[in-house]
Amino acid sequence: MLFFTQCFGAVLDLIHLRFQHYKAKRVFSAAGQLVCVVNPTHSLKYAPTRCAAAQTSAEQGVLSPCHHHEAVHDPQLVPCTCPLFSCPWEGHLEVVVSHLRQTHHINILQGAEIVFLATDMHLPAPTDWIIMHSCLGHQFLLVLRKQEKYEGHPQFFATMMLIGTPTQADNFTYRLELNRNQRRLKWEATPRSVLECVDSVISDGDCLVLNTSLAQLFSDNGSLAIGIAITTSKVHNAEVEM
Amino acid sequence: MLFFTQCFGAVLDLIHLRFQHYKAKRVFSAAGQLVCVVNPTHSLKYAPTRCAAAQTSAEQGVLSPCHHHEAVHDPQLVPCTCPLFSCPWEGHLEVVVSHLRQTHHINILQGAEIVFLATDMHLPAPTDWIIMHSCLGHQFLLVLRKQEKYEGHPQFFATMMLIGTPTQADNFTYRLELNRNQRRLKWEATPRSVLECVDSVISDGDCLVLNTSLAQLFSDNGSLAIGIAITTSKVHNAEVEM
Repeated sequence: MLFFTQCFGAVLDLIHLRFQHYKAKRVFSAAGQLVCVVNPTHSLKYAPTRCAAAQTSAEQGVLSPCHHHEAVHDPQLVPCTCPLFSCPWEGHLEVVVSHLRQTHHINILQGAEIVFLATDMHLPAPTDWIIMHSCLGHQFLLVLRKQEKYEGHPQFFATMMLIGTPTQADNFTYRLELNRNQRRLKWEATPRSVLECVDSVISDGDCLVLNTSLAQLFSDNGSLAIGIAITTSKVHNAEVEM
Repeated sequence: MLFFTQCFGAVLDLIHLRFQHYKAKRVFSAAGQLVCVVNPTHSLKYAPTRCAAAQTSAEQGVLSPCHHHEAVHDPQLVPCTCPLFSCPWEGHLEVVVSHLRQTHHINILQGAEIVFLATDMHLPAPTDWIIMHSCLGHQFLLVLRKQEKYEGHPQFFATMMLIGTPTQADNFTYRLELNRNQRRLKWEATPRSVLECVDSVISDGDCLVLNTSLAQLFSDNGSLAIGIAITTSKVHNAEVEM
């Protein structure tokens, strides 16, 4: 009996997933775009001190971890870059992706243009939606965060970070696009490196920022579809392109 | 002596204007785009009751003014749509433009694509930057407002309104574009009619919203250049275009 109940649940989940996938496809009608349904994770704790220290290290060009013990570190070691958990892991930049997949179960998607479909946008802040995006020979981390910068007024912040150095990040441009209800919002910027902390990018507001009412206008039945595209930046100064 | 001092002041103003114009041209390099320097106006008072009533009337399809006297009104009369002043004027939609020009000295610009260069972004909220834009046989009102929705945290809100009915407004799409420091932000939407109140559009957050740090990233020496384009919307549902 339990077996049948579980099977029925799984079938219902599949139908729900398929339906959400279909909805995102309908919104982003460009054929062939990969739609990824991303479920939220309620953020129980942040580790701002680790992040602040990691950022200072990145700014100084040294990629050292920062666990307040004064041992000599391999400068190629980085603390865990997943913004969800205050994870004690540290490792080389090359193994950050496998750590994020294996330990934090963050999905990885292939393709130059994908659609990130964040579900359950109504959940209370702080909440994160995270995926990795493999593209142009590199891996990127997309973070959508619901956070109350001003108490009682949750906002949504979306940014893309390269799992690589700041110098490597400078070679790319990412675009986040929302499109619904006769409104369109596009944000284009150079991705930041995961060595700079996602928390500081969001607290600086240097990312796509949505207030709750705009997020609702762009949402469909509690899910927000964000079109993502990554390109190599031919001209570093985007101003001359306009 | 006074005459020479004034002449010198005027020459300095002209040089400053020319310099700002040049800067905006450099940012928006597409040749032939008209750059308009827009100076701020500190908003001393708002008239929310008038606006709320005007909006109710617009929603009901009746374009009546709302000065709390129960006289029979010409349904084509509208209260003054200028968001700056609680102006007692009311008149036909056809003469709103000349009223805004003559009484409130709001400039009007011609051209499908223009650059709106708002100066002195550092001024305290509430502050408005306003121009009219004549394009495709219609007049539009562009309002950039600095306002503290959350106390101590000023934000910038930009929207475009048609000086016409909501039905006429549905035929257009406007685009606001910011482009600087390797970041680009685009907002596309159907303009609202001036019969709906600009205050409610802004309080709903259904417009381009910038926090102070983003506004600073997009500003150049205290001035914010916003590229504006208006098109006729061939397909009402913009979602299928993507």
